[in-house]
Amino acid sequence: MLKLFDLAGADDNRRFSSYCWRVKLALAHKQLPVETIPWRFTEKDRIAQSGQGRVPVLVDGDKWIADSWTIANYIEDTYADRPSLFGGGAGRALSRFYVGWADSILQPAIARLILRDILDHVHAKDRGYFRQSREERYGKTLEEVVADREKSLPAFHAKLRPLRTVFQDQPFLGGTAPLQSDYIVFGSFQWARTTSAFELLAKDDLVHAWRERMLDLYDGLARKAPAEAA
Amino acid sequence: MLKLFDLAGADDNRRFSSYCWRVKLALAHKQLPVETIPWRFTEKDRIAQSGQGRVPVLVDGDKWIADSWTIANYIEDTYADRPSLFGGGAGRALSRFYVGWADSILQPAIARLILRDILDHVHAKDRGYFRQSREERYGKTLEEVVADREKSLPAFHAKLRPLRTVFQDQPFLGGTAPLQSDYIVFGSFQWARTTSAFELLAKDDLVHAWRERMLDLYDGLARKAPAEAA
Repeated sequence: MLKLFDLAGADDNRRFSSYCWRVKLALAHKQLPVETIPWRFTEKDRIAQSGQGRVPVLVDGDKWIADSWTIANYIEDTYADRPSLFGGGAGRALSRFYVGWADSILQPAIARLILRDILDHVHAKDRGYFRQSREERYGKTLEEVVADREKSLPAFHAKLRPLRTVFQDQPFLGGTAPLQSDYIVFGSFQWARTTSAFELLAKDDLVHAWRERMLDLYDGLARKAPAEAA
Repeated sequence: MLKLFDLAGADDNRRFSSYCWRVKLALAHKQLPVETIPWRFTEKDRIAQSGQGRVPVLVDGDKWIADSWTIANYIEDTYADRPSLFGGGAGRALSRFYVGWADSILQPAIARLILRDILDHVHAKDRGYFRQSREERYGKTLEEVVADREKSLPAFHAKLRPLRTVFQDQPFLGGTAPLQSDYIVFGSFQWARTTSAFELLAKDDLVHAWRERMLDLYDGLARKAPAEAA
């Protein structure tokens, strides 16, 4: 069976990595059972065989594969008889931009709203690492990053306009059914949901309705996960 | 032969609409010859048969089709034996997000850098309309919109990060060859090029190299067009 090293919090069942969620939904899409292994930021030695120190790391027999995009491509090619994550070569190429947008625009924008909340769920042995690495990255304390977050919401909502253009016309980024592009973008919302009660979206936002559809997928895989959001 | 109403400036040959460029490149991709008809903002009556008042408007026999996305879908379906703009159903669905990103993020970001320059190329009979409609939209004068534009460049470049993620891996958004997604995004850069000498991109930017590739397509269709940029 496939194994996935999956970032966990103080509670083994609190799985909050955006990038691991991209992979877990991709595996469900491909109908591939997986054993997820709770892992913490500071356990670099346990995934050393992947040649780097971050999760997700997928273990398939003697293969160790890191990076959510690399893993998605690996399972697409290795399990080609299963439902496609990309819908063909053009779909695969066009999915790359979603990785760029989620990583460089969406994820940092959500971080500015929830970063301090994450700390409350991080395992005790990871807390020093988490605070220090994030505060170095942002050049301010976790508390300062999220200060006045209610005031940041309109700017955050403006960044989501490209999603609304899509959801005016179709239920998923991939069309009538989800594709890897949906999992890429949803991962960041699930990261927020699993660590913070702060509501990112208004109930009448088209993105909210899409997020509900994503939470329902695969027998509620993402909805059932331990979370802070209602 | 297909006809396209194409926004023109004071000079008939100065064609500067982002949205018309999306269509002209799509037609070239599909190897469909087209007669472009210079059109000005205030000539609503000439395209009334399309049921609205903006270009691009494609005329194919007795069919009048407006809106660049609708036109791309129309020519994809009507001329299905020609090279595909989307690379299949998933590619078509995944292209919608590019429209959203170009329309709501890229185009407004470029406008804040070049909007006043456009006025110098707008036909005399359109100038009043252009200034008034844009100043109402932005709530400030054209001159105020672009004030201190050099200082806005770093924020503009940050918005392009998702494109750089793609171009680290592949030459076009569509993969090894361009698709409609490339034409959607390129349209905004061509809008700037045809109206403004203000350089948007550093020479070592991966987006700059992609723009050069786009300018070379179809025997230099976009590069040969009358422009302000070098």
